[in-house]
Amino acid sequence: MAVKGLKTNDPHIQGLASIVGDSRSILYHKEDLLAYDCDGFTILKHLPKAVVFPKDTQEVAKLVKYCSQHQLPFLARGAGTGLSGGAIPINGEVIISLVRMKRLLSVDLENRRAVVEPGFVNLKLTNSISDKGYYYAPDPSSQYCCTIGGNVAENAGGAHCLKYGVTTNHILGLEVVLPNGEIIELGHNGILDTPGYDLLGLLTGSEGTLGIVTKITVRILKNPEAKQTVLAYFDRVSDGSQAVSDIISAGIVPAALEMMDKTAIEAVEAAAFPVGHPKDIAALLLIEVDGISAGIDEQIHQILEVCRNRNVREVRAARDELERAQWWANRKTGFGAMGAISPDYLVQDGVIPRSKLPEVLSKINKISGETGLRIANIFHAGDGNLHPLVLFDARKPGETEKALEAGSACLQACADAGGTITGEHGVGIEKREEMRFVFSETEIKAQTDIRQVFNPDNLLNAGKLFPSPALCVEIKTEMKAAASS
Amino acid sequence: MAVKGLKTNDPHIQGLASIVGDSRSILYHKEDLLAYDCDGFTILKHLPKAVVFPKDTQEVAKLVKYCSQHQLPFLARGAGTGLSGGAIPINGEVIISLVRMKRLLSVDLENRRAVVEPGFVNLKLTNSISDKGYYYAPDPSSQYCCTIGGNVAENAGGAHCLKYGVTTNHILGLEVVLPNGEIIELGHNGILDTPGYDLLGLLTGSEGTLGIVTKITVRILKNPEAKQTVLAYFDRVSDGSQAVSDIISAGIVPAALEMMDKTAIEAVEAAAFPVGHPKDIAALLLIEVDGISAGIDEQIHQILEVCRNRNVREVRAARDELERAQWWANRKTGFGAMGAISPDYLVQDGVIPRSKLPEVLSKINKISGETGLRIANIFHAGDGNLHPLVLFDARKPGETEKALEAGSACLQACADAGGTITGEHGVGIEKREEMRFVFSETEIKAQTDIRQVFNPDNLLNAGKLFPSPALCVEIKTEMKAAASS
Repeated sequence: MAVKGLKTNDPHIQGLASIVGDSRSILYHKEDLLAYDCDGFTILKHLPKAVVFPKDTQEVAKLVKYCSQHQLPFLARGAGTGLSGGAIPINGEVIISLVRMKRLLSVDLENRRAVVEPGFVNLKLTNSISDKGYYYAPDPSSQYCCTIGGNVAENAGGAHCLKYGVTTNHILGLEVVLPNGEIIELGHNGILDTPGYDLLGLLTGSEGTLGIVTKITVRILKNPEAKQTVLAYFDRVSDGSQAVSDIISAGIVPAALEMMDKTAIEAVEAAAFPVGHPKDIAALLLIEVDGISAGIDEQIHQILEVCRNRNVREVRAARDELERAQWWANRKTGFGAMGAISPDYLVQDGVIPRSKLPEVLSKINKISGETGLRIANIFHAGDGNLHPLVLFDARKPGETEKALEAGSACLQACADAGGTITGEHGVGIEKREEMRFVFSETEIKAQTDIRQVFNPDNLLNAGKLFPSPALCVEIKTEMKAAASS
Repeated sequence: MAVKGLKTNDPHIQGLASIVGDSRSILYHKEDLLAYDCDGFTILKHLPKAVVFPKDTQEVAKLVKYCSQHQLPFLARGAGTGLSGGAIPINGEVIISLVRMKRLLSVDLENRRAVVEPGFVNLKLTNSISDKGYYYAPDPSSQYCCTIGGNVAENAGGAHCLKYGVTTNHILGLEVVLPNGEIIELGHNGILDTPGYDLLGLLTGSEGTLGIVTKITVRILKNPEAKQTVLAYFDRVSDGSQAVSDIISAGIVPAALEMMDKTAIEAVEAAAFPVGHPKDIAALLLIEVDGISAGIDEQIHQILEVCRNRNVREVRAARDELERAQWWANRKTGFGAMGAISPDYLVQDGVIPRSKLPEVLSKINKISGETGLRIANIFHAGDGNLHPLVLFDARKPGETEKALEAGSACLQACADAGGTITGEHGVGIEKREEMRFVFSETEIKAQTDIRQVFNPDNLLNAGKLFPSPALCVEIKTEMKAAASS
């Protein structure tokens, strides 16, 4: 079937266009494809073959079948905010963009769940149900634009994971198009424990390598009756870290427990929402508790006490909702704020046992000294999820490469401390070699064997998530070339 | 190497014995094996080839390698309290019993976790840490004797799952011996979101078909500051069910929310811990809330109000800790109590959306009428996890078969209501055919393909968890034969 308005003789573009039935639902000119050559990991770029915009599950299944039949590599993409390169078409993939599948399909308050299409934006869900007193918990910093489909692929986290868990803890069901075009349903209406293997958990966080998610049932939560935030300034990072451990040991589970170090504070104070944090402190903590009103005051009292026992310079609760909101807006500018103090930055995403915070932060400081690159730290201290931000200038020869090495060294420090190499950003293309820091050959093989079950031709998002010696060298060369270009 | 004291010429018994190095670490005489011919699902029995008792991971790995090398079917067993027949050696398996691997290896209060061997008994963990103010949340009714290894295999639940989740929500790491004898470690020191596929979630609840768990890192929780339980008697099941929905809708998340119907009350009142529940009520609710003291009273007040608005006959909070404990002891006699009113019973384990409680309970009532078998209901109403207990007399010809059919019909009713066929007891041998109620062929194949990856020779616990037409017929015949014998 010929598609009107199509200006190409490429039979595959014609074949794909005929599935979406419309020349405005496919991009194939180089100038259009340029916007899709990378995601939030901008160090490596590659053009896709085409970008198609299906409008429903059936179209996704047909596109997948077409690609499979013609052995065309393909991958799914949401908003493209991923930070590890999971949506970069390194094999010249056909990108199946899910941004037009963006409906909120249903909200069931009685059973506390909602069904969305994968292109539905994270924050819109909370905005759609907040007047009824409900919200969706996972809150990555990109929540105003990232999609829930992308959140599922990456098992996204956010500031409030400490109490509420990451995306996988809020996914109750998925409709998935398998790489052969078959459609399966995972999860049963939000039931906690379902029979058989936990494929729902397996797909969540599989970084788009096992299937394409086309419908998502999520858990929604009742708004807490009350919330309050405490801000604490410390002159020593070790005191701040110890306060983090003390708060948890006291039996308090804060909704969020964030830390920023001196360099990070310099950046956020130079960015869009300065709130007047002193620039000479070593670290600040932002501690939020929520729950029933009756319990909040006592918890705040305990938190203030813990901080005072750890030589806090200044500590207090937000005086009103406005101030609380300002503190959080300032925190959420985080990564982007780095632009105010450095031309480029590379954000890393390691996780460590909470008790190792002082030790690992001091190692990161050492890595900074050795490489001569500043490293800022803004992170989810409560769950030990570090985000070292390596500041560099890509225009200076060799500095991108040095930044990549510093980032990798930070992850090695996390792994050495009994931690791991990603808490919420995923492995993607960026951290594939670092997978070896935490997995044995047998453990990696168990995973690639599972990929093989779902994705036998390896057409779906190939070369991601797992080490692949040949490809790694090739990509590393490309990355180096990109770095020096 | 010859093993002293061994009275058999069977080369495999000798081979297995030489691994555990001791004739007291292997059973092979028929009279010894009889105790291992079934688990908590007693309708089907089969003798194992032998039962071996390894003392550490290395011995487990060697046993597995031996079985694999000689193509001997094998399976792992904990306390044998499973209710779906997962540990029944239907292929004459070598049973690898993990009861001697029962050490509490470490407790790390600061990071809230403990490491146990698989044979460690569930309740012993809480007993080991309660003086320090901590506990382990998953609390199956068999917790005084079931092992944490078995809990992992079945993804066991319990009364407090509503608020705290099932076993998988508390497992932070596993050491697993794969069916080829290789040892892998899953999970990284309790980190929430780890890189790669979620193998930890995949293994948990895989019913002993993917590997043998030899070490388990679990999350431990701080004891709640306070807890209180409310008991409510209803004259109509529909009022009790509606109260359940109302409590959840009010934004309360009880730690437990249990229901018993008239028949169940008759049984528990005739068993070991009667507490004087009236026998003429249609249903009772047992509702426990916990948390910080300040919030408890208000929640109890709300719960009392909700019940009064639903025509409760009588409702009140426990007057003291003793009464609270008595109510729970009465509830926990549940299944066993059936023995007081029926010679035999078959417990089922369906899950439904909470809002479908009245509809499905009335269907179960109808099934009871049609089969002429009484069905008692004791269940976790808060999370819609039903436990219809089909009462029968195995001595009466055809009645076991009728009970199995009634049980299956109850599961069909759950599936039809958008629910599923097991909430915490597993599929095992019992519900394999019922897997088709909730999974398509493609969905089952995705799972059996994964099993194939881990367990390519299908020597480990073969014939469990998934429908297997030929085997199903065969087993059904055996079950019928057993029923009529």
